[in-house]
Amino acid sequence: MDFDSRFRDLIAGMKLDGRYRTFIELERVAGAFPTALWHRPDGQAQAVTVWCSNDYLGMGQHPSVLAAMHEAIDLSGAGAGGTRNISGTNRQHVALETELAELHGKEAALIFTSGWISNLAALGALGRVLPNSVIFSDAQNHNSMIEGIRRSGAEKLIFRHNDAAHLDELMSRVDPDRPKIVAFESVYSMDGDIAPIAAICDVAEKHGAITYLDEVHAVGLYGPRGGGIAEREGLAQRLTIIEGTLAKAFGVMGGYVAGPAILIDVIRSLADSFIFTTSLCPHLAAGALAAVQHVKAHPEDRALQAANAARLKAMLEEAGLPVLDTPSHILPVIVGDAHLCRRISERLLAAHGIYVQPINYPTVARGQERLRITPTPFHTEAHMHALINALIAVGRDLGWPGAQQAA
Amino acid sequence: MDFDSRFRDLIAGMKLDGRYRTFIELERVAGAFPTALWHRPDGQAQAVTVWCSNDYLGMGQHPSVLAAMHEAIDLSGAGAGGTRNISGTNRQHVALETELAELHGKEAALIFTSGWISNLAALGALGRVLPNSVIFSDAQNHNSMIEGIRRSGAEKLIFRHNDAAHLDELMSRVDPDRPKIVAFESVYSMDGDIAPIAAICDVAEKHGAITYLDEVHAVGLYGPRGGGIAEREGLAQRLTIIEGTLAKAFGVMGGYVAGPAILIDVIRSLADSFIFTTSLCPHLAAGALAAVQHVKAHPEDRALQAANAARLKAMLEEAGLPVLDTPSHILPVIVGDAHLCRRISERLLAAHGIYVQPINYPTVARGQERLRITPTPFHTEAHMHALINALIAVGRDLGWPGAQQAA
Ligand SMILES: Cc1ncc(COP(=O)(O)O)c(C=O)c1O
Ligand SMILES: Cc1ncc(COP(=O)(O)O)c(C=O)c1O
Repeated sequence: MDFDSRFRDLIAGMKLDGRYRTFIELERVAGAFPTALWHRPDGQAQAVTVWCSNDYLGMGQHPSVLAAMHEAIDLSGAGAGGTRNISGTNRQHVALETELAELHGKEAALIFTSGWISNLAALGALGRVLPNSVIFSDAQNHNSMIEGIRRSGAEKLIFRHNDAAHLDELMSRVDPDRPKIVAFESVYSMDGDIAPIAAICDVAEKHGAITYLDEVHAVGLYGPRGGGIAEREGLAQRLTIIEGTLAKAFGVMGGYVAGPAILIDVIRSLADSFIFTTSLCPHLAAGALAAVQHVKAHPEDRALQAANAARLKAMLEEAGLPVLDTPSHILPVIVGDAHLCRRISERLLAAHGIYVQPINYPTVARGQERLRITPTPFHTEAHMHALINALIAVGRDLGWPGAQQAA
Repeated sequence: MDFDSRFRDLIAGMKLDGRYRTFIELERVAGAFPTALWHRPDGQAQAVTVWCSNDYLGMGQHPSVLAAMHEAIDLSGAGAGGTRNISGTNRQHVALETELAELHGKEAALIFTSGWISNLAALGALGRVLPNSVIFSDAQNHNSMIEGIRRSGAEKLIFRHNDAAHLDELMSRVDPDRPKIVAFESVYSMDGDIAPIAAICDVAEKHGAITYLDEVHAVGLYGPRGGGIAEREGLAQRLTIIEGTLAKAFGVMGGYVAGPAILIDVIRSLADSFIFTTSLCPHLAAGALAAVQHVKAHPEDRALQAANAARLKAMLEEAGLPVLDTPSHILPVIVGDAHLCRRISERLLAAHGIYVQPINYPTVARGQERLRITPTPFHTEAHMHALINALIAVGRDLGWPGAQQAA
């Protein structure tokens, strides 16, 4: 079997399609965020403004997070040295789990090495331990939830995105005695829209279902203490499980679920992807704990981020650029063509020192290719003007219809 | 549906079975390894000797690893802030990938957030991109490989553990035109035995198969530069892909695969579990890079670890304790009963300050319950004597047949 030519064909096909990804090599500079160094293919380093980071609040450079990490490294070293069960549970893990449970008003929490794994583990275990269960999954759910549902072996029914009525319709058709789980997100990462959580909980409760909410793009950013959209809307107690990440607004890495103690114990006890892997480094748990505590106590960071997002959105609209009208901090500017989207991004980087990664299929549907812009508290008005001007200049140059009406 | 009682029954069943896991809360103490603090359920902290860590060389406390992490945190902050594709590729990642490729004599390498994910991603992608492929899997393969193979959707045929003749038999029965992958480990974690890599490569080559070797428990520990068993036996170039972890002998966290550039590009481009997750923190990549570089240059650490393992094994044998005769650094002492295994471990901890986690089903087969002991360069002769004496005293007290003949 000629593996090589098979692999070469695959890659060639992706290139033709505009789907081949070239990673931009950055060097983050603590204290200078959102400025970073871009290590160019020609070996030169160049300062650029990052407009596509999910370090939404810049907590990845926050002095108290870095101090907590330094301290924990001095105290406990680098890795955990084992799985949670075999010498890999550290007091830093336990402290973080206690804090996360408290943040979401839940009895218990469990941390994982990533948000991706937390969805795989939790949804995978849930569906498996409830024989004959059905998982109702929002059509736009993230890859990690889809993988968890697949792994669970449970029947999956997909409801139309954010459509509680359709969910009700689907649930009504299923035998009332079958265990049911409704899995959805609060802030959807690529469109920046927000789920009708109360309406979905109404339907789920009517059918006696467990609710599973991914708040990966909301924790730290919404709610009086950064508990997410569910906290903001006073709905946390209606959700069985809230899942989040430590890698976006909290600036570190890792993921978690929070929920009833017995259910967290089931996931802890039965999820292979939790059991058979080295636990998170203790100092990462310590850094995340510091981030959660800071974010809880500092609503002004969230407010500044929201204000910056609103300001940039208004500027994009005013300039006539095709930004989606979203109720969140995520600003998708639609290009609608994979090659053009990539070319715009490349030109922004090379000619203007502005980094916004093109988002192409399969992350978004074909025809929905976009620049996904994420303002933080650290993006200034000057950064925003530079971005708008560059978008217009590059767009006109490359014949992007979206920039033609731009002022 | 009464979820609660279903969950309670599950947990109660595990407890009855001796399968319920209670995590021991440790506090690692950098510089004091293998001593750590045990945070007891009663709130007291007690110094204990850890005998079950996979920080095999104590690199988790090595000054050059910690210095590299501190420095990278000061330079680049905490998290990566994005997936590899969306602002999450940092120069620390690229440098580590270059080093790992070099370590294994491969064209390219790709890092993941864990060894678990590296197997899921790589095997999952491989089987999927090769239509109609068959994966031949050693009967004792790790959960993460099993999950990757399952995810690939490829047909799986299981060959008897370490049995190249059986592999040949199975491969001969499959259509020669179907793409074939042979997936196995070098050092098996729970029995400490080592695969006949050359014989397996002979068979795989005869049938034109890709070979995929998990060296998670061997990298850093075997071979002149710590490249693993394949390096030690001069076989690295016969393996298509070598997979490893950064979390055991390298003391940090994360995983990787190394192999031909085109194949690594395929995995990079198509593995969901790689694409849709925040990348490893830059400072973890920097710490792992320092660890790999140190380990490469310091065979004496490996030699001391091997000598300590040999010495402890001889002491266990001399004392008449039922240690498996393994060719590796892993020393399994067989108890053969889940409840007894747990009780021995609890007593060792509470009465002797010695921590060896019981390994029960499903990590090992029922009847194979064991204490898995992992000597490091930092375990002294005094630690060893204390362990042997404690094993004998506890074993006699609890009626463990294995300790009855002990001297
Ligand atoms: C909705 C959603 N859930 C989960 C994840 C995975 O989180 P992590 O990056 O921590 O693996 C992501 C993105 O990365 C996401 O967008
Ligand atoms: C053989 C084997 N492969 C892979 C893994 C996963 O590695 P990691 O702990 O880095 O996830 C383990 C254990 O953890 C293992 O024993």
